[in-house]
Amino acid sequence: MPSTQQTFKNREEHRRWLAAQAALPAGFRVGTARFDFIPREAPKPAKMNLTLIALDRPTPDFAAVFTRNAFPGAPVIVGRKRLGGPGLGAIIINNKISNVCAPGGEAAAEQICAATARLLQMQPSEVLPSSTGVIGWGLPVEAMLAALPAAASSLTGGSILPAAEGIVTTDLYPKVRSATVGTGRIVGIAKGAGMIEPNLATMLVYILTDIAVPRDTLRAMLQRVVEPSFNSISVDSDTSTSDTVALVSSGRVPGVAPADFEQALARVCNELAEDVVRNGEGIRHVIKVTVTHAPDAPAARALGKAVVNAPLFKCAIAGNDPNVGRLVQAIGKHAGALPTGAPDLSRLRVQLGGIEIFAHGVFQLDPRKETALVEHLKSAELYQSIIPADGIYTAAVDYPPHERCVEIGIDLGTGNSSATVIGGDLTHEYVSENADYRS
Amino acid sequence: MPSTQQTFKNREEHRRWLAAQAALPAGFRVGTARFDFIPREAPKPAKMNLTLIALDRPTPDFAAVFTRNAFPGAPVIVGRKRLGGPGLGAIIINNKISNVCAPGGEAAAEQICAATARLLQMQPSEVLPSSTGVIGWGLPVEAMLAALPAAASSLTGGSILPAAEGIVTTDLYPKVRSATVGTGRIVGIAKGAGMIEPNLATMLVYILTDIAVPRDTLRAMLQRVVEPSFNSISVDSDTSTSDTVALVSSGRVPGVAPADFEQALARVCNELAEDVVRNGEGIRHVIKVTVTHAPDAPAARALGKAVVNAPLFKCAIAGNDPNVGRLVQAIGKHAGALPTGAPDLSRLRVQLGGIEIFAHGVFQLDPRKETALVEHLKSAELYQSIIPADGIYTAAVDYPPHERCVEIGIDLGTGNSSATVIGGDLTHEYVSENADYRS
Repeated sequence: MPSTQQTFKNREEHRRWLAAQAALPAGFRVGTARFDFIPREAPKPAKMNLTLIALDRPTPDFAAVFTRNAFPGAPVIVGRKRLGGPGLGAIIINNKISNVCAPGGEAAAEQICAATARLLQMQPSEVLPSSTGVIGWGLPVEAMLAALPAAASSLTGGSILPAAEGIVTTDLYPKVRSATVGTGRIVGIAKGAGMIEPNLATMLVYILTDIAVPRDTLRAMLQRVVEPSFNSISVDSDTSTSDTVALVSSGRVPGVAPADFEQALARVCNELAEDVVRNGEGIRHVIKVTVTHAPDAPAARALGKAVVNAPLFKCAIAGNDPNVGRLVQAIGKHAGALPTGAPDLSRLRVQLGGIEIFAHGVFQLDPRKETALVEHLKSAELYQSIIPADGIYTAAVDYPPHERCVEIGIDLGTGNSSATVIGGDLTHEYVSENADYRS
Repeated sequence: MPSTQQTFKNREEHRRWLAAQAALPAGFRVGTARFDFIPREAPKPAKMNLTLIALDRPTPDFAAVFTRNAFPGAPVIVGRKRLGGPGLGAIIINNKISNVCAPGGEAAAEQICAATARLLQMQPSEVLPSSTGVIGWGLPVEAMLAALPAAASSLTGGSILPAAEGIVTTDLYPKVRSATVGTGRIVGIAKGAGMIEPNLATMLVYILTDIAVPRDTLRAMLQRVVEPSFNSISVDSDTSTSDTVALVSSGRVPGVAPADFEQALARVCNELAEDVVRNGEGIRHVIKVTVTHAPDAPAARALGKAVVNAPLFKCAIAGNDPNVGRLVQAIGKHAGALPTGAPDLSRLRVQLGGIEIFAHGVFQLDPRKETALVEHLKSAELYQSIIPADGIYTAAVDYPPHERCVEIGIDLGTGNSSATVIGGDLTHEYVSENADYRS
């Protein structure tokens, strides 16, 4: 998963760069609306964004993958049905309430789709609903129906940025990545910051392209590209109820070789996935674990996930403490718990920041290395904590100052497969965000 | 896992109660020594405790179970060998350095055992070593050898409390539980506060008894009682390299029915396991998840573990936020990721504090319930955070004010098995403890 190694001095510089990525492919428009409402379940004022992505005409060439959480949200249940239909014409997204296991949730989602379809002169079955936010609350259907016309009348081509901004919940900043192949474009937006361990996670990702790719090919490609991207990240190991990655082609630009398209698609997905982690709740260090010479890629990925999900190691990284003991303990915990029994770890070599810290069954440490390791961690730090008087930690930045990672290399020496997993540290900012979040 | 539902007004009251539990069974003595040293790997002054548990004479009747982490500490490797030997006469425990994957670690452990054996006129193979602390550093063997005579000469019968105090690292308070069966006693001590998810975890537990139980019976019983106790707790899901539960009988009190002994042993283990969580790093709420009507006990236990290991749910509990959405999301994540496919969740009913919050596939919420749920959480809170000026959170208590838990009931309705898992919330105190811990 290549990082583009950019740096941004401030929010404005980052926003300019985002705008430069955000040109919509031909055949798409986006619109938004925002309104006040009072949730039945927690009666205090809230605001909801509606984000509408619309094609000029419905297309058969669309794909989507969804969460494997056993309690999928109503939009996911509806979305799975949409996959069997002939065409997709629009995606209607709301934030604030995820419409999961709420009484009447599916009917509410279908009502929103029907109203959206009427405004766009499409069929309800051509509209994909998407929701993110609190689990368990019901959608404020009447308020949403009242706001839909504003979203529809604001539909414009040009930039996807209003959509990237509209779908956020606890994200620090909008996320947009794009690629050009010949005269065609691929542009993707993502939201997601907590409850992130895709299998898939929330995490909503919409990738739009004007490059013509037939439906079945699109679906096969999406399955392939999500594995090393969105399925290889974890902010907090919590797989959400609502994950969605949708990929839609307006078909306007024919003649692009499928391999070229897939390579560009993979790059957009890899970059977006890393963006999701980098803007993750409380993330002050992005951690990239590359597992090599593993028996197979799923085993490599599972080991990488175990490392980025290990609370003690994550806390140490937060403190710029290269606690390699906890890193090895995390590897050992995962290995020792495998149903198939612990694999051969005799050839294990572990690097941190390119420095070997474990080999031949023992740690390879000295004070000079320790100093270099601390420097590596400090250089990967996105921002330092601001100690708050009221005990509530918030992120010090609303843009990514750089794209560096804590780099961990785990060489199993027993096979030919590899995988890269991206996660982050465990910080006071994460706890503050989540010890009182219901919005 | 019954809680004894005690309350303690202050540290002194708790310490008096601990002392009352701490009478050693016949045939055992404990001794301690404390000394200064400078670790090679981080040259600044540190203190190490040596704790010695000695039988008047070696016994064949001893049992132990160890971590399944694939990188076990040297003491665990040596300990597994000891299980094959004819007798156990002493346990020598050090804190501060866990002797895991350090060059020469096994030889260092054996040196300590040999010196201990000489002082006690036993064989080196009759001494079990145990270490807890930083992973990766080497034992300060010379300094330990110099301090051992003081530990041996301080050996006394009477109370196990010096040993309970000697073995701690980041524990808030020592942990002692006991039971009487006829004229015999069982007394257990535990250390452990972080890196706790036994499979087993660090977590060192020593259970001493004067009740005569033959070796094979003791070993079979220990395997049975650890499953619902020490293997059913998780502070932070991190399984350590060093977990040990040792059970030793001096054989002085014959004629106790095995079933009576095992029942008392189980109670001591269940209580100690819950104590370990309650004094866990950063724990401000103990969470007890009881999974019922499950297909089998391991499935029930795995689901309970998934709930107590879910960061978003743990954070919500920390904030006294009965975020039932995250509870259901955690269940769904676990179920959706099972290799065998998601089980039938159609009959799932979930209770929090005895109040039904999910049934028939939807949440069962209303404002009155919400108020009651918040009250339940607040009453289970062990202490409120103290917002620190320097950003470093520390526990507000060094004793357990009460033994209440956040009570979660998950009824799967598909079988006849159940399991109870105990864990805790995710707090600023945990992050502070672990974002800069190397002592």
